[in-house]
Amino acid sequence: MLLIAQSDAAISQRLNVDLADVESRFAAELISDLPCVNRLVTHIERYRGKMLRPTLVLVSAMASEVDAPTRDEQRVVATVVEMVHMATLVHDDILDEAAMRRRGETINELSGNETAVMLGDYLISHAYHLCSSVGRADISRTIAEATNVVCEGELLQLANRNNLDLDEQTYFEIIRRKTASLCGVCCRVAAVLNGSPRPVADALYGFGEKLGVAFQIVDDVLDLTGDEATVGKTLGRDLEKGKLTLPMIRYLADADPTDRAALSAMLSALRDTGETDPRHAEALNRVRDRLRESDTLAYSRQWASRLVAGAKDSVIEHVPESTARQLLLDMADAVLTREF
Amino acid sequence: MLLIAQSDAAISQRLNVDLADVESRFAAELISDLPCVNRLVTHIERYRGKMLRPTLVLVSAMASEVDAPTRDEQRVVATVVEMVHMATLVHDDILDEAAMRRRGETINELSGNETAVMLGDYLISHAYHLCSSVGRADISRTIAEATNVVCEGELLQLANRNNLDLDEQTYFEIIRRKTASLCGVCCRVAAVLNGSPRPVADALYGFGEKLGVAFQIVDDVLDLTGDEATVGKTLGRDLEKGKLTLPMIRYLADADPTDRAALSAMLSALRDTGETDPRHAEALNRVRDRLRESDTLAYSRQWASRLVAGAKDSVIEHVPESTARQLLLDMADAVLTREF
Repeated sequence: MLLIAQSDAAISQRLNVDLADVESRFAAELISDLPCVNRLVTHIERYRGKMLRPTLVLVSAMASEVDAPTRDEQRVVATVVEMVHMATLVHDDILDEAAMRRRGETINELSGNETAVMLGDYLISHAYHLCSSVGRADISRTIAEATNVVCEGELLQLANRNNLDLDEQTYFEIIRRKTASLCGVCCRVAAVLNGSPRPVADALYGFGEKLGVAFQIVDDVLDLTGDEATVGKTLGRDLEKGKLTLPMIRYLADADPTDRAALSAMLSALRDTGETDPRHAEALNRVRDRLRESDTLAYSRQWASRLVAGAKDSVIEHVPESTARQLLLDMADAVLTREF
Repeated sequence: MLLIAQSDAAISQRLNVDLADVESRFAAELISDLPCVNRLVTHIERYRGKMLRPTLVLVSAMASEVDAPTRDEQRVVATVVEMVHMATLVHDDILDEAAMRRRGETINELSGNETAVMLGDYLISHAYHLCSSVGRADISRTIAEATNVVCEGELLQLANRNNLDLDEQTYFEIIRRKTASLCGVCCRVAAVLNGSPRPVADALYGFGEKLGVAFQIVDDVLDLTGDEATVGKTLGRDLEKGKLTLPMIRYLADADPTDRAALSAMLSALRDTGETDPRHAEALNRVRDRLRESDTLAYSRQWASRLVAGAKDSVIEHVPESTARQLLLDMADAVLTREF
């Protein structure tokens, strides 16, 4: 969990109760009369992570109505966005032909790509199914609009795979779409379901969107430099998949032709060697060393800091003071300090 | 197109106008501000086939209100179900590790598995987005319920891959879920949007469901025995993917141990050899010959005939006579005679 000891104990406690409710709604929605489906669903419980998106819904719900208890519909929407996110995680695990050839031995826990695709589809379908139980077509439409944008972000990222000329503007466009838009919608929908005034809903959208961009930048930095045991997942995946992120984009923008050629060769080596090949770890380490020695990590973290500051300002200006509002501000700070 | 010269010309003409409307709504919904997304969407237009599902919506709409013109919402739903179907086609093209190793050279037109996954997700997301524009949460819920069931059917099929003991009951359960349930919902939703009486909506559901099962049986038979040029797609895919369908299930149920062992060896050979390997075509032909010489194809077609007869009875009993009702009956007959 992303959150945060220093926050008010009573509201943290309420949040935890709500998150537990989200978990049980999640499980209840996915139950099938087919045992083979239930086995797969149980298997993906391991994907559950920081619950960022449901937390954004729930805390925004409390903050937009000055510490009021969350409504049933808000907990439903919190479950929906977690289900959508889980589907993208399952689909992110689909491997491509090239990756498959190298890593086929180690992956495939879920009996293969095809099952992973269908399981992700099952999650997406249930997310919309659950969402429609709120009985409000406008909410369904807003969520679906956000998932349209998430898919566009993923497709834009894939279209720029291995593109060494990717610029910052396109990078921000990618992460705004694939991560930040849904975070913004989490916050906005919570307010809409409270009937909050438009400026409050808009400010919360702005908060979620900026926090989402910052969160993704930090995620991308951790993928390059984090400690695998602390982060709890395989790192260096972005480089292997040819995803250029902010530190690398910054590095390449300033690099002279020799540097650029060297880095490009390292990236090719990373793509062309299997995980078990000693040259793989070597290439990864050399890329990391280059970045660590440069100012690009600090530069990226500064970007994240500025965005978090902007996110907080947006809330401070338009959302009335409350302990829940403070929890939002604490969440934003935690995005910067997290090491996992 | 599945349909059928002998039907009333005026109503066929109206249907074609509506289908053209569905095509333009389809294209309009998917437009993105990202050129890379629009390129992919243009590419998948080639997947458009018989438009079975939108046709079921539109003709059921006309039949449940005695030849009334279709409503805007019904044409929206017709577009939604075609989009859902297109997404499953795109996702069906995702290859598994084993298949990939053998066929990597020939597939991958869409720049790989990962792009195909995200493009399918983009279609699914837009399907629900468009569906919510009808402004009725009950319709969104019914469609999402149907897509839940479609995914279950696909997962049940994957769980039974290469299962030589697959029985008829499970086969029917698979195709009822993966194909027939959505066909039933197409017909029912059309009636619900007309405010038709419950028995009419139920009868139309029964029609669509039975027609869907029959359609899938015929599809499965064509995959085994059809002429590739006429059907217009690569055949024998079910066998390669370890999908046992009705003729094979029937054959195995009656086979003596020697026959069974021989067939099992042929199926393994099919899985283990690449498409370009001469042993591949040889194994495929030997399996086909066995089935052609048996009574299993006739048996399967009889099943389809009985289902089509049941589908027609259901409509004749509960839906008032009209030229649109006749079109439904003609569609059902066409399922049996189609060679593509």
